[in-house]
Amino acid sequence: MDLNLILDKIKPDKKEEEEMKSLIGKLLKAAQSKIAKPLICGSIEKGTWLSGKNEVDLFLLFKPSLSKKELEKKGLSLAKKIIKIMKGSFVIAYAEHPYLRGKIGKYKVDIVPCYEITDPEKIMSAVDRTPFHVKFVKANLKNPDEVRLLKQFCRANKCYGADLKTEGFSGYICELLIIKYGSFLNLVKEAAKWRAGHAISFLETKEDYKKFKTPLIVIDPVDRNRNVGAALSAESFYRFVRACNDFVKKPSRDFFFKQEVKPYSLKEIEKEFNKRGTRWYLISFEKPNVLDDIIYPQLRRCVKALDKMFQQNGFKVLRSDFYCNKECVLIFEMETWQVPKIMKNIGPDVYSKHAEQFLKHYKENKVFIEDDKWVVEVEREFTTMLHFLNHLLKRPEKELLEKGIPSKIAPLMRKCKLCGGGDTLKAIEKLPEDFRIFLKEWFEKDLNVV
Amino acid sequence: MDLNLILDKIKPDKKEEEEMKSLIGKLLKAAQSKIAKPLICGSIEKGTWLSGKNEVDLFLLFKPSLSKKELEKKGLSLAKKIIKIMKGSFVIAYAEHPYLRGKIGKYKVDIVPCYEITDPEKIMSAVDRTPFHVKFVKANLKNPDEVRLLKQFCRANKCYGADLKTEGFSGYICELLIIKYGSFLNLVKEAAKWRAGHAISFLETKEDYKKFKTPLIVIDPVDRNRNVGAALSAESFYRFVRACNDFVKKPSRDFFFKQEVKPYSLKEIEKEFNKRGTRWYLISFEKPNVLDDIIYPQLRRCVKALDKMFQQNGFKVLRSDFYCNKECVLIFEMETWQVPKIMKNIGPDVYSKHAEQFLKHYKENKVFIEDDKWVVEVEREFTTMLHFLNHLLKRPEKELLEKGIPSKIAPLMRKCKLCGGGDTLKAIEKLPEDFRIFLKEWFEKDLNVV
Repeated sequence: MDLNLILDKIKPDKKEEEEMKSLIGKLLKAAQSKIAKPLICGSIEKGTWLSGKNEVDLFLLFKPSLSKKELEKKGLSLAKKIIKIMKGSFVIAYAEHPYLRGKIGKYKVDIVPCYEITDPEKIMSAVDRTPFHVKFVKANLKNPDEVRLLKQFCRANKCYGADLKTEGFSGYICELLIIKYGSFLNLVKEAAKWRAGHAISFLETKEDYKKFKTPLIVIDPVDRNRNVGAALSAESFYRFVRACNDFVKKPSRDFFFKQEVKPYSLKEIEKEFNKRGTRWYLISFEKPNVLDDIIYPQLRRCVKALDKMFQQNGFKVLRSDFYCNKECVLIFEMETWQVPKIMKNIGPDVYSKHAEQFLKHYKENKVFIEDDKWVVEVEREFTTMLHFLNHLLKRPEKELLEKGIPSKIAPLMRKCKLCGGGDTLKAIEKLPEDFRIFLKEWFEKDLNVV
Repeated sequence: MDLNLILDKIKPDKKEEEEMKSLIGKLLKAAQSKIAKPLICGSIEKGTWLSGKNEVDLFLLFKPSLSKKELEKKGLSLAKKIIKIMKGSFVIAYAEHPYLRGKIGKYKVDIVPCYEITDPEKIMSAVDRTPFHVKFVKANLKNPDEVRLLKQFCRANKCYGADLKTEGFSGYICELLIIKYGSFLNLVKEAAKWRAGHAISFLETKEDYKKFKTPLIVIDPVDRNRNVGAALSAESFYRFVRACNDFVKKPSRDFFFKQEVKPYSLKEIEKEFNKRGTRWYLISFEKPNVLDDIIYPQLRRCVKALDKMFQQNGFKVLRSDFYCNKECVLIFEMETWQVPKIMKNIGPDVYSKHAEQFLKHYKENKVFIEDDKWVVEVEREFTTMLHFLNHLLKRPEKELLEKGIPSKIAPLMRKCKLCGGGDTLKAIEKLPEDFRIFLKEWFEKDLNVV
């Protein structure tokens, strides 16, 4: 297949390039001052940006002699001035330090104050490192278009972006990988054989790997103590490896522009349900108005916390996950959803020093010995999943927080919709169509890479 | 309460004593020879035998210069001669060495050849120790009637006998305990506070305990390397401690002569079943014609092996046990007896060196990642307990043996009766009445000792 056909689609055309150049010229002019040096960072400067991605990073480099407080004050003040000259609007955002998120016409412009340091291993704030990244990439990247292909490939395979929703490949990793492997095709051929723990270095000594344990370890060429792959999840990593695998076997345009998935029909879903023999429970609520970087980790933690509670009550979870669009849906596919009234707790060994406490605690219950361990029979409060869930979701917010339901979700539990068992199909009918695409992926998911 | 009233019932009367004396006189006379010294052992000699227990142990002590082969040959020959003189019958039984089980009138007479040694810590065969036990008890036991009370107390509370069926208190332990505590009442008061790992010594140094881990450690006063409590199970130990507890609170004749338990009615059993919400499966077969010391451990192992297989197939066992009378019944009270078609196997960590093997093995299945572990979805062969059991019990004997079903039981599986679910009550109706007593104990069992 001809990768140039892909590039035609994703590479900014002349007009787009010139508009961007003109914006940057004006920005740099507006940023002139005696107190800081302006520097364009990000994919624009490195020539690896994708068409339609109108995002510019403008860094303002201050002398390290400035206190952090002064840096914040003077930095924001200068940034505001720039936006004013450019006739844009802004909000102030907070990472390690405050920065400015501006909007100028169709462009998103982040203006980030930082320190101008000389040794990137001695940074004062994470953003101080960025100028060094730009410098390294500009000095070493011979073919920025290959990075564009890689970014688009990752995007189509749902592993592009180091944000907490995707937990995928950052733009910087894409650039480093192309620098390392020379071309997109070369990288893909190699990556098809990768396994979790794969390490890539640009340095001469290799000892640095051992202190990191992530699916892909990429030692930052400007700071040997930093793993650029830290934010990449095992799922995203193997999604990428699997895509590379498939691409090597049969390259096609589809790896860059995914065919629209035909959602399952309700009939098909019902058929899958019956084939699997599991029972499904859905908890849905409106997506709270918070950043994806906040709600996605919370949804993950929420599903885990609920999983744990179900297991503790004897309800065995086969798989669980969440769907998040306008609506959030927590999904639990159950192996056991009904349990006997009586249950057995396995206690300490009869020789254990904790045995006495156990016997005292269960003075009113029936206690006996199995395999030299004390065991006790107790009655369960809940014998069905639905009963348990109905009870749980009505608990006070404080109690839910204590049980590990995250802060942005706990307040929504009371008014969430709960469905399970025979009602699941009816509930799915009312959900957006892409929920059925989500389910299709659930049923068809396969990350095997051998 | 007056313990003398108990003694009146359990202590041999004058007539019984005299009959026994007369037998022993004749036995010793018949045992006169130039090659071995005859010695009466067992509870008769120690004066701790219970009325109606017409069992005599006659030991024949040979010089240690004799080879084991000669000992066996000469010992059995002399034993046979004795039985002939006494006009009894016999079978040859095998422990560490062969011995003779004789029957003389109403008496069971074991004739055991052994070595006459001087140091019991340097025995050549386990039976060589017995004469030293007799000597120690005779020299130290001041009140044999207290031992009789203890034996009867243990018997009524189902923990008397070191055999593999009971795994309880041997006669020798009972004697040692009375020697240690002086009287039955004193012992019971102390034992009510015992916990697993309790150690009793007749020696001065106490280091000996540490090498033993049994519920009750009794260092043999004639051999400091031997734990007389080795055969006692935690269950029997706590059955005893619990009985002592209850006796101390409210002493009564019932602790020596158990009231007949009224078996549950079918209605009561049904009520319990419903209250518990579990499902029951019974596997029954005729008791094979082998010694209790063989079949009981095999029944225990069999239940464990089946437990394991059920769990592996997703069927969760709440409790399991066996009943053994003319018929043997393996009993499984299930928490889960039905599972979905689909199941999930949790595989190695994505970083593990075993990951590759896992991925290769499940090349045809759907594989994905959960919590940095590879997982795979596979279809189960059996989704109901009954289906699984029906399949299992028809397997060839060889396969059952490989799966851990013991040798005397595996051949019976093919013709056993299996019932489960709604049929259980009907099956119980056909079983002997004492099976319902067994079930009553199942439901009411409680060994809490605090």
